[in-house]
Amino acid sequence: MTARDEPGRLMIAEIGEQPEVLARLLDHRDEIAAVRARLAQHEPRFVLFAARGTSDHAALYGKYLVEVDLAKPAGLVSPSTLTVYGSRPDLSGVLMIAVSQSGGSPDLVDSMTAARSCGALTVAVTNAPSSPLASAAELHVDIHAGAERAVAATKSYTAQLLALHLLLVGDDGTELLPERAAATLAGSAAVHLAGRYRFAERLITTARGYSYPTAREAALKLMETSYLSAQAFSAADLLHGPLAMIDAGVPVISVVTPGRGGTAMAAALERLHGVGADVLPVGPADGLPVVGGDLPEELLPILEILPLQQLAWRLALDRGTDPDRPRGLAKVTSTW
Amino acid sequence: MTARDEPGRLMIAEIGEQPEVLARLLDHRDEIAAVRARLAQHEPRFVLFAARGTSDHAALYGKYLVEVDLAKPAGLVSPSTLTVYGSRPDLSGVLMIAVSQSGGSPDLVDSMTAARSCGALTVAVTNAPSSPLASAAELHVDIHAGAERAVAATKSYTAQLLALHLLLVGDDGTELLPERAAATLAGSAAVHLAGRYRFAERLITTARGYSYPTAREAALKLMETSYLSAQAFSAADLLHGPLAMIDAGVPVISVVTPGRGGTAMAAALERLHGVGADVLPVGPADGLPVVGGDLPEELLPILEILPLQQLAWRLALDRGTDPDRPRGLAKVTSTW
Repeated sequence: MTARDEPGRLMIAEIGEQPEVLARLLDHRDEIAAVRARLAQHEPRFVLFAARGTSDHAALYGKYLVEVDLAKPAGLVSPSTLTVYGSRPDLSGVLMIAVSQSGGSPDLVDSMTAARSCGALTVAVTNAPSSPLASAAELHVDIHAGAERAVAATKSYTAQLLALHLLLVGDDGTELLPERAAATLAGSAAVHLAGRYRFAERLITTARGYSYPTAREAALKLMETSYLSAQAFSAADLLHGPLAMIDAGVPVISVVTPGRGGTAMAAALERLHGVGADVLPVGPADGLPVVGGDLPEELLPILEILPLQQLAWRLALDRGTDPDRPRGLAKVTSTW
Repeated sequence: MTARDEPGRLMIAEIGEQPEVLARLLDHRDEIAAVRARLAQHEPRFVLFAARGTSDHAALYGKYLVEVDLAKPAGLVSPSTLTVYGSRPDLSGVLMIAVSQSGGSPDLVDSMTAARSCGALTVAVTNAPSSPLASAAELHVDIHAGAERAVAATKSYTAQLLALHLLLVGDDGTELLPERAAATLAGSAAVHLAGRYRFAERLITTARGYSYPTAREAALKLMETSYLSAQAFSAADLLHGPLAMIDAGVPVISVVTPGRGGTAMAAALERLHGVGADVLPVGPADGLPVVGGDLPEELLPILEILPLQQLAWRLALDRGTDPDRPRGLAKVTSTW
């Protein structure tokens, strides 16, 4: 086997690039600040996000930024309402943000075109400035992540999170991210801990608040590379039903980084311990450490996902699959 | 064992009550029409839903009604933004609908109180008119489902769907629902098909559009009664990653009732067949039939869930668990 064919080569290289990708995006922060100024002129009353897959988890992070930091109502649009059902709502005063690595998914392009014709101010956040989605939107944010070749998105996800933070909240605290990302990647125990899940058929991820998208994205990464059933629940929703299926045989990965979201995990963690669950914390030193220092809570999701990406990569290799070539998937997914 | 202790006795009784529950709610349609008239006066520009667990799937159905039938933007609020993070957005012109069987979950009560103080018009949809949630909201819709004693919600779910339809869209076509529900329950093959999943560790449910909440609710019902990992994906999202984990060993339940949502399933079904997946369709006669006749597509979710509730009940019994007493759960879940 040549180095070129080595399984997981692309994914681990792109995981490792992330400190540099974040730094490059920060070098372009003025571009995003200019788009941010355009949004401020419009004073949108309400923000809608449209996305699929990994980008949908970035959009969910954006929704928390809008609801908490901007104190505006927000929603994730169901693209089928605009495409399959052809709904044409009055979207005046609405900001619609579509998030997509490739900018090529036809249903997002159609959703964006429909939203724009319905009066929304439209922004596309992509890694492809000449993509159909970027053209369909009035404004574009380039995440500058460079070509992403692994099917499992990694660097484009953290770049989307940072781009959305720069677009919606600004750049406070962000200059420390590249160095903290490098420290988190270097200090990770993920490669050693992957063995713990070598024979797991299913796994639960949980978090709350800003970190809930981290739980969602970690579950998707594990599903698409290691083919185990990984399910993400907000820690509050976990108590409304899914807790019943958890016992000592169903591993749980719990994001508990410092801040209000982590603090609000206490009740769920207590219940999980009560049912004998095997819980791996993301954040604390005895789990998958996140080197956040005193970064504000809303920036931590950009770091939390890093050891989980490493875990998914290592676990896929251990289980004999190639995380660069998930069965049944292509890099650009066409859905209508 | 006395009849009183028979496992699953409460759940199957409440599943069977649904035709009568729907008929009773229709008898009270004037109450809901009065609330509907109040909403029309306010002409809300945007609709937010707040809910947890099964009620969150009813809220998702409501979101489709708002986006497609009312052609207004909508969103599902993340309750933690109002409670854990204390956000106080400007919600003037916003309609906030909280959905809860018990009306007792503290985080929903707090979210509703916060939304009302932020200027939203608030409506609570509950099975408990004297609950704290009903009191916290300006307007209340009683779903009249009668006391629900099984921990796994069934009749309150279909009553929530119908109540939201009456509230948001009206009563066109609804008079046929009780009879169609009885025919769907009577003609179901669910009890025979449950054996197929006796030893399954995991299962996927999928649908699109109005029926996507059905897939979500079916997955939750299976998780909380049979303790298997059941995951729901919109058919479009399935192609953006999760498809990789599906092969002939991972069963799929697919909702394909007539209408645009069912038609839009074609691409996903083709891909599923391509990877050798075992697909049980909900809707067609060769799967779990739904006796919808020519009911409009947006009413079918009220019927589609019925055979899936029966399936969850039977499967739980087959697997030796008591669906009336899911481990680790209580009827009213307190989350903050």
